[in-house]
Amino acid sequence: MATPPIKGDQQLVKNINRMALLRLLREHNGIARADLTELSGLTRSTVSVLIKDLIEEGWLVEGDAHATGAIGRRPTPLGLDGTRLVLLGADLGPDAIRVAATSIRGELLASRQLALRSKDPDRACRQLVEMALAIAGEVTARGERLLGLGVGLHGAIDKRSGVLEFAPNIGWRQVEVGRRLRGLLDTAGLDGVPVYLQNEADLAAVGESEFGDRPVDDPLVYVSCGVGVGAGIILNEALFTGVSGSAGEIGHSTLVIHGAACSCGRLGCAEAYIGLKAIAAAAGCLQGAQIQRRALRERMDAGDKPARAAFARAGASLGVLLQNVWTTFNPQAIVLGGETVSLGGSALLDATMEVLAGYVTRAGMPPPAVRMAKYGDLATAVGGAAYLLHATLHPHQPALHTRYVTPA
Amino acid sequence: MATPPIKGDQQLVKNINRMALLRLLREHNGIARADLTELSGLTRSTVSVLIKDLIEEGWLVEGDAHATGAIGRRPTPLGLDGTRLVLLGADLGPDAIRVAATSIRGELLASRQLALRSKDPDRACRQLVEMALAIAGEVTARGERLLGLGVGLHGAIDKRSGVLEFAPNIGWRQVEVGRRLRGLLDTAGLDGVPVYLQNEADLAAVGESEFGDRPVDDPLVYVSCGVGVGAGIILNEALFTGVSGSAGEIGHSTLVIHGAACSCGRLGCAEAYIGLKAIAAAAGCLQGAQIQRRALRERMDAGDKPARAAFARAGASLGVLLQNVWTTFNPQAIVLGGETVSLGGSALLDATMEVLAGYVTRAGMPPPAVRMAKYGDLATAVGGAAYLLHATLHPHQPALHTRYVTPA
Repeated sequence: MATPPIKGDQQLVKNINRMALLRLLREHNGIARADLTELSGLTRSTVSVLIKDLIEEGWLVEGDAHATGAIGRRPTPLGLDGTRLVLLGADLGPDAIRVAATSIRGELLASRQLALRSKDPDRACRQLVEMALAIAGEVTARGERLLGLGVGLHGAIDKRSGVLEFAPNIGWRQVEVGRRLRGLLDTAGLDGVPVYLQNEADLAAVGESEFGDRPVDDPLVYVSCGVGVGAGIILNEALFTGVSGSAGEIGHSTLVIHGAACSCGRLGCAEAYIGLKAIAAAAGCLQGAQIQRRALRERMDAGDKPARAAFARAGASLGVLLQNVWTTFNPQAIVLGGETVSLGGSALLDATMEVLAGYVTRAGMPPPAVRMAKYGDLATAVGGAAYLLHATLHPHQPALHTRYVTPA
Repeated sequence: MATPPIKGDQQLVKNINRMALLRLLREHNGIARADLTELSGLTRSTVSVLIKDLIEEGWLVEGDAHATGAIGRRPTPLGLDGTRLVLLGADLGPDAIRVAATSIRGELLASRQLALRSKDPDRACRQLVEMALAIAGEVTARGERLLGLGVGLHGAIDKRSGVLEFAPNIGWRQVEVGRRLRGLLDTAGLDGVPVYLQNEADLAAVGESEFGDRPVDDPLVYVSCGVGVGAGIILNEALFTGVSGSAGEIGHSTLVIHGAACSCGRLGCAEAYIGLKAIAAAAGCLQGAQIQRRALRERMDAGDKPARAAFARAGASLGVLLQNVWTTFNPQAIVLGGETVSLGGSALLDATMEVLAGYVTRAGMPPPAVRMAKYGDLATAVGGAAYLLHATLHPHQPALHTRYVTPA
């Protein structure tokens, strides 16, 4: 909303102007100060002061001056600096933890993945912080500054309290993940590094939006298919999370009335048909509650018919879910990601696209654009890094209530 | 987005400031100039000039001065003027046309409803304009000024072209409704009155949001149940319509895979179970493609068991659809409206709420808030009037591409 800021709140005005300049610089890499002044509508002196601050803080870099042919000082191109600030992201999944470090320009600097050692919240958080610290140590060896850590959780986080409400696939209810991570980072001496929590699909969507080719697709719906199934939704450039933070839980929309039991307690949820556990069970790769990922991958690599059929059945259900996303959101793009997509490959996706095409043909409408996640299995971890940029460029988004900083 | 305006674009800045003042005045009825200046962050002289304009144009009214006890001039309370500007709205349904006139404060001044005389686009548009002119004549007898006409269509409008893409229940495809209405208004001498087109459920949602009690629920999903079934979605105070304008077509989301044939060509759409035609058919009140509304109402009034059972079955399906709206949008409120709701009453709604409660219980989550439309059967027509206010208070919304003005 363009309501003018309250008089006297200079810091707010300054932050909004900084944000505006950073956004312009991202759209117009290599722009000169004079053009930035013109585009921003700010005064030359305001732009000068802000640019000086942003250069000092590591956000911007000046390039070599261009020869314009005109008399006088040559304009110096400005751009986002990919070398001095580091964004950390993590994906705390029900079976694995992934961490990634990126520049503010979206360049992937390093990543790491390990199986989850324990589903105990304390131990899982400790493992995550250990991994984040290890990767941070690598990429900040020359003095680069950490801007923060964005963590994706596989469940719904109440954005008003910051508490993880329910993550059925890891078995957590009402877990204060943010407080735990904050304490561990403080102990490690990183009390100045803010932590943000967000749903895993939401972060993946933010990664596509902040680090994707410009202009980005909008609305964009990222459909994450793994043990859980969920969507991250970008509308008007910003993450949409609903009144309490659980918007996009399309894995728990009903696909089959009175259908199969879901981990959430309901019957007939999309996740009960598309979730990786259902697929592993159908492919004979579920032992108790444990997905035998290696066996599943080997069977798929070997072209095992029952395994391929299990993915194809899930793919057909995913096609119905995408038809519902299409009619509900009228998105510019649907992005698919998650380990089910990488495991299932064409066995899954061919069925998905065939079912979706059937709806499109019957409706006589142009098909929605569907594409694959840019960062593959690292989508959530990279999205966690991207979220730090998102929070800087959209400072008034309600999602920021999940920010954890050390009280002064 | 708070990007500063381009330098020199004084008109844009002025419009944004006007909008900010109108929004503040709506939230703080009876506010004094000094407080408005403080809250807005604008200078005293800017506020003075804008207030003077807004009073002259009929938006604002000054009340009697308060005695504050302090020495000096008594502050004069300012508020939205409900007497000098008139908003017109219309609902061009597949069977009936409804028109409504409201003040800018959301007071319903007059309304009228007639059966649709013809499904021919030219004749239907002529009937609508006749009705709108008649009601406008009544409410502008003392010189009140018409701000515009907002028209709800029961189909998807491409917001980039302004063309009605497809309205299955009236049988229109690629119809230029806007051009027709514009021509008819121009012929009637109303060439200065802008026309806006929008989907019927979208308008009903806007009516709930602009004319509802403040602070309004946000996100708000209005679920319109009539011959067609659709949703209007309000996010961050503004109408969300998707990339081309068809977001919220939840009546064409799949409720039953490989299910009943829908008017749109697909199989298993929600509308094929919840739409009024399906209900009328099950109740024995469909002759050919024609719903026998009077018979259906009489049977419901008489407590006819098959009719009640038909509404209850549809209500149960509606409960599944609301469960999906809930998980997908995490809304602050779901609002129900449309003629199916008024015809079906408790026979429909008890079944809906029972099914929804079943999902809520199984998921172990707090239930979503569900309430009935404030303006009942007039929701879309009143929403059309409210849309004129919405367009003024959210001038940068993409939905404005459906505005029809006479070229200068």
